[in-house]
Formats: sequence, C-alpha cells, structure tokens
Amino acid sequence: MANGPLDGKRVVVALGGNALGTTPQEQLKLLDGAAAHLTRMVKEGINVVITHGNGPQVGIIDEAFAAASKDPANQVPFMPLADCNAMSQGYIGAQLTCALMNQFRAQDVMRNVADVPTHVVVDADDPAFKDLEKPIGAFMSEQEAKAFAKATGCQVREDAGRGWRRVVASPMPQDIVELDTIRNLVDDGCVAVAAGGGGVPVVMEDGAYRAVDAIIDKDLVSAILAWKMHADALVILTAVDQVCVDFNKPTQKALAHLTAAEARMYMAQGQFAPGSMLPKVEACVRFVEAHPGGVAVITSLGHAVEGLRGEMGTLITAA
Amino acid sequence: MANGPLDGKRVVVALGGNALGTTPQEQLKLLDGAAAHLTRMVKEGINVVITHGNGPQVGIIDEAFAAASKDPANQVPFMPLADCNAMSQGYIGAQLTCALMNQFRAQDVMRNVADVPTHVVVDADDPAFKDLEKPIGAFMSEQEAKAFAKATGCQVREDAGRGWRRVVASPMPQDIVELDTIRNLVDDGCVAVAAGGGGVPVVMEDGAYRAVDAIIDKDLVSAILAWKMHADALVILTAVDQVCVDFNKPTQKALAHLTAAEARMYMAQGQFAPGSMLPKVEACVRFVEAHPGGVAVITSLGHAVEGLRGEMGTLITAA
Repeated sequence: MANGPLDGKRVVVALGGNALGTTPQEQLKLLDGAAAHLTRMVKEGINVVITHGNGPQVGIIDEAFAAASKDPANQVPFMPLADCNAMSQGYIGAQLTCALMNQFRAQDVMRNVADVPTHVVVDADDPAFKDLEKPIGAFMSEQEAKAFAKATGCQVREDAGRGWRRVVASPMPQDIVELDTIRNLVDDGCVAVAAGGGGVPVVMEDGAYRAVDAIIDKDLVSAILAWKMHADALVILTAVDQVCVDFNKPTQKALAHLTAAEARMYMAQGQFAPGSMLPKVEACVRFVEAHPGGVAVITSLGHAVEGLRGEMGTLITAA
Repeated sequence: MANGPLDGKRVVVALGGNALGTTPQEQLKLLDGAAAHLTRMVKEGINVVITHGNGPQVGIIDEAFAAASKDPANQVPFMPLADCNAMSQGYIGAQLTCALMNQFRAQDVMRNVADVPTHVVVDADDPAFKDLEKPIGAFMSEQEAKAFAKATGCQVREDAGRGWRRVVASPMPQDIVELDTIRNLVDDGCVAVAAGGGGVPVVMEDGAYRAVDAIIDKDLVSAILAWKMHADALVILTAVDQVCVDFNKPTQKALAHLTAAEARMYMAQGQFAPGSMLPKVEACVRFVEAHPGGVAVITSLGHAVEGLRGEMGTLITAA
C-alpha cells in the first residue's frame, strides 16, 4: 500500500443518489463504476467511510408501496417513509458493498467492507416539522391527494401549479446513532458504508428513539459524521469537477479554494442552487468550522484522490 | 453485569420472520417485545448475534414491486428477489436495532447495537438452481403467470391446484461474506443483527460476487454463522417451547435433550415438518456436528435464557 501523504487518513466520502440510476440493473452498473473510483482512494491507504444519497431510490420504494397498497387485493400495507429509507439503505448498501468487494478482489486490496444502516437523531421541535416543505412521490389530482392524506395520515400540498404531492419535513440532523460502531469498524480497517440516504430519522421521546417521517440531507449528515469521527477530510462527490460562482453565466468562474468565510459570503449572495450545490457547500463549511484541522473537497467521482491532493476540485478550509 | 455461567458466552440467536407481523406498525410492536426478551440474554453477559427470518416481509416487498411495476404509469421497476431481500434486511434490521437500543436504555445496558446486511455465498451448481421448488408471491391465473414470466424472466409453476405462483431456488448456504465484520463487532462488545432473511444470495463467477434470485433458509445460515464464529451456542427461537415427536398425536412427547444421532434418527423418520421444525433441527445438528464444543437450543422467545441454562426448551448436543 501507498505510504503516500494520504496513507492512514480518515475520510468521509459522500456519493450522490442521482449517480445511482433508477432501476436495480442500472444501479448495479453505476455502482460498479463508482466502486472502481472509491477503490482508488482505498489503495492510497485512506480509511474510507462512504455515505450515499437515496433520492430516486427511496422515491421508487415509496411509490411501489403507495401504488400497491391502494388495491386491498394486493395485501401490501402502506409503508412509512422511515421504513422506506431503511429499505433503501439495505438496497443500495448491499449492491455497493458487493461492488466494492469485487473491485477489491480485482485490484488486490485486502480490506473488509460493511454496510451499517444508520439512524440519525433529529429534534422533535425542529421548525421543519411545523411547515413541511419537501415534496416527495408522484403527482396527484386534488381529489386523489385528499383521499391519500385521509387514508395514510400524510400531508399533501399543491406543488407550483404542477399538481398535488405529499410533503414531508427535512429537519437538521443532530447526531448519528451508530457513530461508535462506524468508528470501530473503520479503526479495524473496514471500509464502511453508512448513513445512506441521510439515515432513518429518529426523535428521542420519553427516553426512547421513535422513527419519524422525514428526509434528512445526506451531505449535512456526512458533515456531522466526519466531524464526530474527527475525519481528516470530507469529500462530497457531485456531477461537476469544481464549485462555480456565476454558474451558467458568461462570468462563470470555477473555484479551486474557498475559505469558510468566502463560502459563507457566496452562500449569502445566493450563488449556489438550493437542493443542489448549496447543501454541499453548507455541509463543507459546517465541517471545517467545527473541525478546523480537517479539509473539505467538492469534486466529481473520478477526481476524489486528486481533490484530496489539492490538484482538482474545490478545496474548502476553515481559514 | 452477570458473572454467571453465561457471562462472556458467544451466542447466535435466530428469530423467526413469522413472529414479526405483516405491517410496519405490527412489526414495531412485536420487535419491541422480542427486544425485551433478547435484552435478558444480553444482561446475562452474553455476546449476542441476532439473525432473523423475513418470509412475510420479503413477500410484502416483492408483492409491492410486482404489483406496482405492472402499470407503467407508476414508474416503478420490477425488483429482483436479491434486492427485495436486501430491502427486507434494512427494513427489519433498522426497526430491530432501534427496539434493542430502546430496551438497553430502559434496562440500563451499556451496549452498542448494529445491523450488518449480509451476503451469503451459494454454489452456482447447487441442484436447487436446476429444479426451482420454493413458491413465493401471490397466486395468479395461468395466463397472468405466463405473462409475468415473459415480462420478468422469472419462472412460474402450478401450485397444488391452488393457482400459479413464481418459484425460486432454495440453495444450501456455503459461506457468510461479512463474517469478519460480524465477529469484529461482537468482539468489540456490540450486539450485531446479521444474516437477516438468510442473507442476499451471491454466487462467485469469474472472480466476482453476483447476486442471484434465491431464498436461503435462515436457520441453516445461522448454523454456519455460529460454527464459523466458534459460538458457544446456537439458539433457534420458534412458536413452541420444545421440539416434539409424534407432534399433534396422542403419543406426542416433548424432548428436553437430543443428541445429533437421535435427531438424525427422528429426521429420517419424518418426525419434523419440512419448512417448519425440520430446518431448525437440521441447523442445530449441523452446528453441533461441526463444532462439538457448542450446544444448540430450540425454544420459544421467552425462554432463551432458560434454554441456555438447560431449564427449558430442547437442548441438542453432539453426543
């Protein structure tokens, strides 16, 4: 193994859910490619924890249960979103760990891999639970939507003239329940897949965890995981090589380096798209502010190693 | 903690899928009860690995995708059984780990809990792949079944005059892919949930694992896991307190102890129902024959501790 500057570093790397396709066969193929890139990181001697999104995947699972449970002949129950998230962690995690094991074998890497389906604590008093803002699932007519709400107890809302959709909360993640286990696995040399889809959201109620219907941003969860693990770096993978300002304008400029203060200034200017680059930059800023010894990198899947070497991507540091 | 005779023992305990209900709400309630019993084992100082069935649960997931994918308007793909199994591991595992954490907190037990979605190696040349015998999913008319087979590539078969069903292979488990990780977690004091639903079946092909459509018996997987972990005991939980011979006959007799040879004799006599008590007894016999220092116990959820103490249940030993 490497003995290079990345050897022995602890890195949390976040893989986007949109990079995983929409069918199990497509996902298998895309994960094989992702695993090849992630294996490059492991071959540098990096102790990697991989988090991943689940937007399209949890959407498919939610939709399968919503559609099938409409007809009582199917004997399929309506499935709460927390359980759909847990299913998506199993679904993506199993394919991803398998793809990694195959790449490790092909590239002569002796490392174990394990998926740890993860619960993430959110605050029951988070304002996101008062005003549900995250639309999910298929569009419905007003009548369908109201019948669905009545049958399931879910909330629905008219979505920008395009029809009605279910809405759920997107609260701030507070803590990673399985943190110790993930850290122990990584310390044992295992490559861990964790906090998939932002984790199953739980609130603490009367001294017990209770799963709630919500969607947690996977980049913000990755930042907390990286911080609590004292990771040397947080790498957020996306479709572009670098973060840009004036995106899609003639003055567009790619950024090789951002301090947390510069990033906050651009965020305040509205330079980054909500639901896209904004949560990624925000996650990086939160990580380096909480753990100034660490660095954050936003880049594409193929450039993660170069990003950590400072040769590619956007590096975000505390100062 | 205990310092009693069970303190520090390593035990694999298999929980039945039928004990978990058929809706997410029912499962949550039943798992809370199961977690209370499993916590009694942990309070004895036992290092517990929990495996679980997934029959009704994987059935619901498979049915949701089969039903929803029939209508192209739903934009839901047909989901291979291996992926449905992975989803069921996430679904049950997340609820079970959460229930255990809550019980641990309520009963002042300081232990971590983690679910490890597991792959299980089967032999591509297993005769089970030649003659598919395990019916799954909803009954269909002959016409529906043939259309389903054509659309999905699945095999279907007429099932004892009751209609047509999909059939899949039920091959013998050969190895547990995540064995090292499960062992490391348990050695670190973590209570592990693993090999749920018998695991995602994989075959080794051209040096890589490939997931296959099959269902693996969770009791046989539990026996391999217990053997490879050098567990002190394998506990298989079921609906009855003890194994019986002449079951449901006037001569019915409950058995407190069986040697492997006696168990094999009763198996040859057809004393145990296939798909019910037979795989449980077979799993116990395989475990104690492979690891004669270990013991196996078949009993009900509420009597696992008493079963390990030899006060209740059926104890199976090598000789």
